[in-house]
Amino acid sequence: MKRTEISSLGEFAFIDRLTQDIKLKNKTSILGVGDDAAIFASEGNRSLLTTDLFLEGIHFDLVYTPLKHLGYKCVVATIADIYAMNGLPKQLSVSIGLSARFSFEDIEELYEGIKLAASIYGIDIVGGDTSASQTGLLISMSCIGGVNSEDICLRSEAKPTDLICCTGDLGAAYMGLALLEREKKVFAGETGGFEPDFATNEYILERQLKPELKVSILGDLREKGIKPTSMIDISDGLASELLHICKASKVGVRIYEERLPIDYETARMAEELGLNITTVALNGGDDYEFIFTIPLGLMDKAKEIEGLRFIGHITEESLGASLVTRDGTEISLKAQGWK
Amino acid sequence: MKRTEISSLGEFAFIDRLTQDIKLKNKTSILGVGDDAAIFASEGNRSLLTTDLFLEGIHFDLVYTPLKHLGYKCVVATIADIYAMNGLPKQLSVSIGLSARFSFEDIEELYEGIKLAASIYGIDIVGGDTSASQTGLLISMSCIGGVNSEDICLRSEAKPTDLICCTGDLGAAYMGLALLEREKKVFAGETGGFEPDFATNEYILERQLKPELKVSILGDLREKGIKPTSMIDISDGLASELLHICKASKVGVRIYEERLPIDYETARMAEELGLNITTVALNGGDDYEFIFTIPLGLMDKAKEIEGLRFIGHITEESLGASLVTRDGTEISLKAQGWK
Repeated sequence: MKRTEISSLGEFAFIDRLTQDIKLKNKTSILGVGDDAAIFASEGNRSLLTTDLFLEGIHFDLVYTPLKHLGYKCVVATIADIYAMNGLPKQLSVSIGLSARFSFEDIEELYEGIKLAASIYGIDIVGGDTSASQTGLLISMSCIGGVNSEDICLRSEAKPTDLICCTGDLGAAYMGLALLEREKKVFAGETGGFEPDFATNEYILERQLKPELKVSILGDLREKGIKPTSMIDISDGLASELLHICKASKVGVRIYEERLPIDYETARMAEELGLNITTVALNGGDDYEFIFTIPLGLMDKAKEIEGLRFIGHITEESLGASLVTRDGTEISLKAQGWK
Repeated sequence: MKRTEISSLGEFAFIDRLTQDIKLKNKTSILGVGDDAAIFASEGNRSLLTTDLFLEGIHFDLVYTPLKHLGYKCVVATIADIYAMNGLPKQLSVSIGLSARFSFEDIEELYEGIKLAASIYGIDIVGGDTSASQTGLLISMSCIGGVNSEDICLRSEAKPTDLICCTGDLGAAYMGLALLEREKKVFAGETGGFEPDFATNEYILERQLKPELKVSILGDLREKGIKPTSMIDISDGLASELLHICKASKVGVRIYEERLPIDYETARMAEELGLNITTVALNGGDDYEFIFTIPLGLMDKAKEIEGLRFIGHITEESLGASLVTRDGTEISLKAQGWK
């Protein structure tokens, strides 16, 4: 494979080559890469800003993560926060730090994934920064979104008796990661490429390596005039995200083990690895599903939306946050987050 | 000194403690830290987005950079890009990755500098991300600014015969860095703290460790109705920035060695270190002065602005970019940037 050293290009030619084919598509993207700052107009009467860091060795392992997938996933993870405010992502800035280990072709591959995700989700890449790094790859993305003030969904407006809805199954990405980590260990020491047989685990691998956002469900909600009282995306795991809603809304939450949506492949892999499937669904993270709450009275309307799962309800704050198991026991939810 | 391990706090308490005393001051900052994204309204009919990466070992050395100064400088470097578009910075997001080497108190000190700069320049800290890092400290900042479309200064509108103006002296920050690097080497191997005698080099050290932006000059321009035809801030060095203007505006540039503004301390340190002072002024970088171009006819009006220096003029593109030395020789300008 061709390998062009980035040092042979220099910073400015490197940026030019990476960004030369970027075309702005949103009417609110006025000026993209190439000046001191990007220029945009607001889409709706409010704008949103979110930012995410992705560090090699912390957030991703390049032994089993293709660079194109990585770029794609970073975009998805970043823009999920804009959708979770009920906004639409419009402009993205991409900063990367990279060590001499990476060739121009590597970064081109990373950008292919970034550009693909941007194109699929209708976002313009408008700027960023690049730097040499002493150790590995790091990516920082910031995204601007547009929204009208009356449509904004915060974490803080959930009310007791509200239903808790989830846009898809949980724990799959984490089981995909666990499988990749296991195979990495198995293959360590062996010569040759890293190509284990992944045929029967396609779903969990895809959920880990190329997650997608259920934006059509958010569109269905808008169409039906259902405005969630609170919303959040699942990056750290269902339990952590529910606790964020509890804290911000000053409420409690009760979810039901039997209602947790879990895919067959996820359950099978958890069993294979000797893990408790409920813990996997609660704390696995990286799901990038949306959790939101709606008033109880809107349940019938919401039931018409395909793919929506009802996993529990909001309670008074004094009742705390808990999972009700199949046998009726209540277990307190615990937060994750890095240490 | 007290040392609180961040691992003893966990991610969420860590963020809460760092951000608990942040108050939003700009009327366009609607919602800050604490939800999936920050919410802001546009200030002017256009918004600006810029983003900057700062990596330990690449952009800063903590042996001689106090964390508070580092935080301050990162903010200044980030918002300089907004001013260079002739906008006003309003909202800032701060992401940090940090290894276990850093205590909560360290990051609190970093944030003190960030908060101080934000307060002085009238910016609200509205969000960010934090992460564990395998190696050292990294900081990524994104800034939103406001501007009216008719006030925007791009790099691309400079015209032949335009005057090139600079808001302050050059090369000082680089000489401050060179002094710090020299003292670091001298003190390497010695026991005790790093406290060399810096008394006679206060100016160049301050320019390196705590740069300020000449925003009052940009205000004077607005007051006098002078709109620059192009503008850029000096981070990589005067030569690189002028070449950016040349490329974007499809023009040439001629600057005059005798007109390069250089402080006495800068000149003395360059001599002490055996460096060519003109090269230092052209390529040192980290100056965070603004370079802008104005039509020749506005020279008299611009001369009334205190602190403004006229260093050359824009030419036809075919004449290239050059420095005219004291003896009348023309030397081509060369770009910097990392490799």
